[in-house]
Amino acid sequence: MSDHNCIFCKIIAGQIPCTKIYEDNQILAFLDVHPISEGHTLVVLKEHTSRVDSTEPLAMARIGEMLPKLTASVKNAMGADGYNVLCNNGASAGQVVEHMHFHIIPRKTNDGVVKHWPAFQYPDGRAAVIAEKIRKNLAL
Amino acid sequence: MSDHNCIFCKIIAGQIPCTKIYEDNQILAFLDVHPISEGHTLVVLKEHTSRVDSTEPLAMARIGEMLPKLTASVKNAMGADGYNVLCNNGASAGQVVEHMHFHIIPRKTNDGVVKHWPAFQYPDGRAAVIAEKIRKNLAL
Repeated sequence: MSDHNCIFCKIIAGQIPCTKIYEDNQILAFLDVHPISEGHTLVVLKEHTSRVDSTEPLAMARIGEMLPKLTASVKNAMGADGYNVLCNNGASAGQVVEHMHFHIIPRKTNDGVVKHWPAFQYPDGRAAVIAEKIRKNLAL
Repeated sequence: MSDHNCIFCKIIAGQIPCTKIYEDNQILAFLDVHPISEGHTLVVLKEHTSRVDSTEPLAMARIGEMLPKLTASVKNAMGADGYNVLCNNGASAGQVVEHMHFHIIPRKTNDGVVKHWPAFQYPDGRAAVIAEKIRKNLAL
Protein backbone atom coordinates (compact mmCIF):
# COMPACT_ATOMS: atom_id res chain seq x y z
CA MET A 1 0.00 0.00 0.00
CA SER A 2 1.33 3.45 -0.79
CA ASP A 3 0.64 6.82 0.78
CA HIS A 4 -0.35 9.45 -1.80
CA ASN A 5 1.29 12.25 0.15
CA CYS A 6 4.58 10.43 0.60
CA ILE A 7 7.53 11.57 -1.51
CA PHE A 8 9.21 8.15 -1.29
CA CYS A 9 6.01 6.41 -2.43
CA LYS A 10 6.04 8.77 -5.42
CA ILE A 11 9.67 7.87 -6.13
CA ILE A 12 8.81 4.16 -5.85
CA ALA A 13 5.87 4.67 -8.22
CA GLY A 14 8.16 6.44 -10.70
CA GLN A 15 6.24 9.74 -10.38
CA ILE A 16 9.36 11.49 -9.04
CA PRO A 17 12.77 10.58 -10.48
CA CYS A 18 15.59 9.15 -8.40
CA THR A 19 19.15 8.03 -9.02
CA LYS A 20 18.65 4.30 -8.61
CA ILE A 21 21.18 1.94 -7.07
CA TYR A 22 19.13 -1.23 -6.71
CA GLU A 23 15.55 -2.40 -7.08
CA ASP A 24 13.64 -5.61 -6.59
CA ASN A 25 9.99 -6.38 -5.86
CA GLN A 26 10.29 -5.36 -2.19
CA ILE A 27 13.15 -2.88 -1.97
CA LEU A 28 14.47 0.26 -3.64
CA ALA A 29 17.90 1.82 -3.01
CA PHE A 30 18.73 5.26 -4.41
CA LEU A 31 21.02 8.21 -3.78
CA ASP A 32 19.93 10.71 -1.14
CA VAL A 33 19.46 14.08 -2.86
CA HIS A 34 20.71 15.80 0.30
CA PRO A 35 23.79 13.67 0.93
CA ILE A 36 25.97 13.90 4.00
CA SER A 37 28.81 12.39 1.98
CA GLU A 38 29.15 11.40 -1.69
CA GLY A 39 27.44 8.07 -2.30
CA HIS A 40 25.01 8.51 0.63
CA THR A 41 22.35 5.94 -0.22
CA LEU A 42 18.81 5.34 1.06
CA VAL A 43 17.25 1.88 1.29
CA VAL A 44 13.47 1.72 1.50
CA LEU A 45 10.72 -0.86 1.41
CA LYS A 46 8.26 -0.33 -1.43
CA GLU A 47 5.43 -0.94 1.00
CA HIS A 48 4.80 2.25 2.96
CA THR A 49 5.53 2.01 6.67
CA SER A 50 6.66 4.93 8.76
CA ARG A 51 8.82 3.36 11.49
CA VAL A 52 10.89 0.26 12.20
CA ASP A 53 8.51 -0.70 15.01
CA SER A 54 5.48 -0.51 12.70
CA THR A 55 7.11 -2.65 9.98
CA GLU A 56 6.48 -6.36 9.52
CA PRO A 57 9.41 -8.37 10.92
CA LEU A 58 9.84 -10.28 7.65
CA ALA A 59 9.97 -7.07 5.63
CA MET A 60 12.61 -5.73 8.03
CA ALA A 61 14.46 -9.03 7.62
CA ARG A 62 14.58 -8.40 3.87
CA ILE A 63 16.25 -5.03 4.46
CA GLY A 64 18.72 -6.71 6.80
CA GLU A 65 19.46 -9.37 4.22
CA MET A 66 20.30 -6.76 1.56
CA LEU A 67 22.46 -4.56 3.79
CA PRO A 68 25.72 -6.55 3.47
CA LYS A 69 25.81 -6.26 -0.34
CA LEU A 70 24.51 -2.70 -0.45
CA THR A 71 26.93 -1.42 2.20
CA ALA A 72 29.84 -3.22 0.52
CA SER A 73 29.03 -1.66 -2.84
CA VAL A 74 28.67 1.86 -1.43
CA LYS A 75 31.87 1.55 0.59
CA ASN A 76 33.93 0.03 -2.21
CA ALA A 77 32.62 2.37 -4.90
CA MET A 78 33.41 5.44 -2.83
CA GLY A 79 36.77 4.21 -1.56
CA ALA A 80 35.43 4.75 1.96
CA ASP A 81 37.10 3.53 5.17
CA GLY A 82 33.78 2.90 6.83
CA TYR A 83 30.09 3.78 6.84
CA ASN A 84 27.13 4.43 9.08
CA VAL A 85 23.86 2.56 8.74
CA LEU A 86 21.21 4.80 10.27
CA CYS A 87 17.44 4.79 10.50
CA ASN A 88 15.81 7.76 12.23
CA ASN A 89 12.36 7.05 13.63
CA GLY A 90 10.18 10.00 14.55
CA ALA A 91 10.77 13.75 14.30
CA SER A 92 12.57 13.75 17.66
CA ALA A 93 15.11 11.36 16.15
CA GLY A 94 15.60 13.47 13.02
CA GLN A 95 13.24 11.63 10.66
CA VAL A 96 12.13 14.01 7.92
CA VAL A 97 10.32 11.77 5.40
CA GLU A 98 7.60 9.64 6.98
CA HIS A 99 8.49 6.53 4.99
CA MET A 100 10.93 4.31 6.84
CA HIS A 101 14.40 4.51 5.30
CA PHE A 102 17.87 3.28 6.12
CA HIS A 103 20.77 5.60 5.35
CA ILE A 104 24.09 4.15 4.22
CA ILE A 105 26.62 6.95 4.72
CA PRO A 106 30.16 6.30 3.44
CA ARG A 107 32.83 7.71 5.74
CA LYS A 108 36.50 8.56 5.55
CA THR A 109 38.96 9.09 8.36
CA ASN A 110 38.71 12.60 9.80
CA ASP A 111 35.95 13.63 7.41
CA GLY A 112 34.44 15.59 10.27
CA VAL A 113 30.92 14.43 9.38
CA VAL A 114 29.87 13.15 12.78
CA LYS A 115 31.26 14.03 16.16
CA HIS A 116 30.85 11.58 19.00
CA TRP A 117 27.51 11.80 20.68
CA PRO A 118 27.54 12.74 24.37
CA ALA A 119 27.49 9.56 26.47
CA PHE A 120 26.96 9.21 30.20
CA GLN A 121 27.01 6.39 32.76
CA TYR A 122 24.10 4.98 34.74
CA PRO A 123 24.21 5.55 38.48
CA ASP A 124 24.20 2.32 40.54
CA GLY A 125 21.04 0.25 40.12
CA ARG A 126 19.55 2.42 37.38
CA ALA A 127 20.49 0.12 34.48
CA ALA A 128 18.67 -2.82 36.10
CA VAL A 129 15.51 -0.76 36.52
CA ILE A 130 15.62 0.44 32.92
CA ALA A 131 16.28 -3.05 31.55
CA GLU A 132 13.38 -4.49 33.54
CA LYS A 133 11.06 -1.87 32.03
CA ILE A 134 12.23 -2.68 28.49
CA ARG A 135 11.93 -6.45 29.00
CA LYS A 136 8.37 -5.98 30.30
CA ASN A 137 7.55 -4.08 27.11
CA LEU A 138 9.06 -6.71 24.83
CA ALA A 139 6.17 -8.53 23.17
CA LEU A 140 7.66 -11.76 21.83
CA MET B 1 33.13 -18.39 16.28
CA SER B 2 34.20 -15.88 18.90
CA ASP B 3 37.19 -13.57 19.10
CA HIS B 4 39.07 -13.90 22.38
CA ASN B 5 40.05 -10.25 22.45
CA CYS B 6 36.53 -8.98 21.81
CA ILE B 7 34.65 -7.47 24.75
CA PHE B 8 31.25 -8.29 23.21
CA CYS B 9 32.29 -11.93 22.67
CA LYS B 10 33.18 -12.00 26.39
CA ILE B 11 29.78 -10.57 27.26
CA ILE B 12 28.10 -13.17 25.02
CA ALA B 13 30.15 -15.92 26.71
CA GLY B 14 29.08 -14.62 30.13
CA GLN B 15 32.66 -13.74 31.11
CA ILE B 16 31.73 -10.06 31.45
CA PRO B 17 28.33 -9.13 32.89
CA CYS B 18 25.73 -7.13 30.99
CA THR B 19 22.24 -5.84 31.66
CA LYS B 20 20.34 -8.13 29.36
CA ILE B 21 17.25 -7.17 27.40
CA TYR B 22 16.82 -10.18 25.13
CA GLU B 23 18.66 -13.34 24.17
CA ASP B 24 18.13 -16.22 21.78
CA ASN B 25 20.48 -18.63 20.05
CA GLN B 26 21.63 -16.03 17.52
CA ILE B 27 21.15 -12.63 19.12
CA LEU B 28 21.84 -10.76 22.34
CA ALA B 29 20.41 -7.34 23.26
CA PHE B 30 21.71 -5.47 26.30
CA LEU B 31 22.02 -1.95 27.68
CA ASP B 32 24.95 0.14 26.46
CA VAL B 33 27.10 0.97 29.50
CA HIS B 34 27.90 4.34 27.93
CA PRO B 35 24.39 5.36 26.94
CA ILE B 36 23.53 8.41 24.89
CA SER B 37 20.04 8.34 26.42
CA GLU B 38 18.42 6.16 29.09
CA GLY B 39 17.44 2.80 27.62
CA HIS B 40 20.11 2.95 24.88
CA THR B 41 20.29 -0.69 23.80
CA LEU B 42 22.78 -2.67 21.73
CA VAL B 43 21.79 -5.59 19.51
CA VAL B 44 24.54 -8.01 18.52
CA LEU B 45 24.91 -11.33 16.77
CA LYS B 46 26.52 -13.98 18.95
CA GLU B 47 28.72 -14.95 16.03
CA HIS B 48 31.61 -12.51 15.82
CA THR B 49 31.64 -10.35 12.72
CA SER B 50 33.08 -6.89 12.60
CA ARG B 51 31.00 -5.08 9.94
CA VAL B 52 27.65 -5.24 8.22
CA ASP B 53 29.36 -5.94 4.89
CA SER B 54 31.28 -8.90 6.35
CA THR B 55 28.16 -10.46 7.90
CA GLU B 56 26.16 -13.29 6.35
CA PRO B 57 22.98 -11.91 4.75
CA LEU B 58 20.78 -14.38 6.66
CA ALA B 59 22.35 -13.40 9.99
CA MET B 60 21.71 -9.74 9.13
CA ALA B 61 18.15 -10.71 8.22
CA ARG B 62 17.71 -12.09 11.73
CA ILE B 63 18.74 -8.74 13.23
CA GLY B 64 16.30 -7.01 10.90
CA GLU B 65 13.54 -9.39 11.92
CA MET B 66 14.06 -8.63 15.63
CA LEU B 67 14.28 -4.84 15.25
CA PRO B 68 10.53 -4.09 15.19
CA LYS B 69 9.90 -5.74 18.57
CA LEU B 70 13.12 -4.53 20.17
CA THR B 71 12.66 -0.92 19.04
CA ALA B 72 9.01 -0.94 20.16
CA SER B 73 9.95 -2.20 23.61
CA VAL B 74 12.74 0.35 24.07
CA LYS B 75 10.57 3.20 22.84
CA ASN B 76 7.51 2.24 24.88
CA ALA B 77 9.45 1.45 28.05
CA MET B 78 11.24 4.80 27.97
CA GLY B 79 8.20 6.84 26.95
CA ALA B 80 10.25 8.04 23.97
CA ASP B 81 8.84 9.97 20.99
CA GLY B 82 11.26 8.30 18.61
CA TYR B 83 14.54 6.47 18.30
CA ASN B 84 17.61 6.06 16.14
CA VAL B 85 18.77 2.70 14.84
CA LEU B 86 22.48 3.09 14.14
CA CYS B 87 25.32 0.80 13.20
CA ASN B 88 28.78 2.35 12.86
CA ASN B 89 31.17 0.42 10.66
CA GLY B 90 34.86 1.23 10.89
CA ALA B 91 36.77 3.69 13.07
CA SER B 92 36.10 6.50 10.60
CA ALA B 93 32.38 5.97 11.20
CA GLY B 94 32.73 5.99 14.99
CA GLN B 95 32.85 2.23 15.60
CA VAL B 96 34.65 1.57 18.88
CA VAL B 97 34.06 -2.15 19.55
CA GLU B 98 35.04 -4.38 16.62
CA HIS B 99 32.00 -6.62 16.95
CA MET B 100 29.14 -5.45 14.77
CA HIS B 101 26.37 -3.89 16.86
CA PHE B 102 23.18 -1.98 16.24
CA HIS B 103 22.34 0.85 18.62
CA ILE B 104 18.73 1.57 19.51
CA ILE B 105 18.73 5.07 20.97
CA PRO B 106 15.43 6.31 22.43
CA ARG B 107 14.81 9.98 21.72
CA LYS B 108 12.59 12.74 23.03
CA THR B 109 11.65 16.03 21.40
CA ASN B 110 14.37 18.63 21.85
CA ASP B 111 16.59 16.29 23.86
CA GLY B 112 19.55 17.89 22.10
CA VAL B 113 21.24 14.53 21.58
CA VAL B 114 21.87 14.79 17.87
CA LYS B 115 22.07 17.86 15.69
CA HIS B 116 21.38 17.58 12.00
CA TRP B 117 24.34 16.39 10.03
CA PRO B 118 25.65 18.78 7.38
CA ALA B 119 24.07 17.90 4.04
CA PHE B 120 24.97 19.21 0.60
CA GLN B 121 23.63 18.84 -2.94
CA TYR B 122 25.27 17.13 -5.91
CA PRO B 123 26.30 19.38 -8.78
CA ASP B 124 24.65 18.48 -12.12
CA GLY B 125 25.60 15.04 -13.40
CA ARG B 126 27.56 14.01 -10.33
CA ALA B 127 24.82 11.82 -8.83
CA ALA B 128 24.61 9.73 -12.01
CA VAL B 129 28.38 9.14 -11.98
CA ILE B 130 28.34 8.13 -8.32
CA ALA B 131 25.35 5.81 -8.75
CA GLU B 132 26.98 4.11 -11.72
CA LYS B 133 30.08 3.42 -9.59
CA ILE B 134 27.99 1.94 -6.78
CA ARG B 135 25.91 -0.22 -9.12
CA LYS B 136 29.11 -1.57 -10.69
CA ASN B 137 30.30 -2.55 -7.22
CA LEU B 138 27.05 -4.26 -6.28
CA ALA B 139 27.71 -8.00 -6.33
CA LEU B 140 24.28 -9.62 -6.51
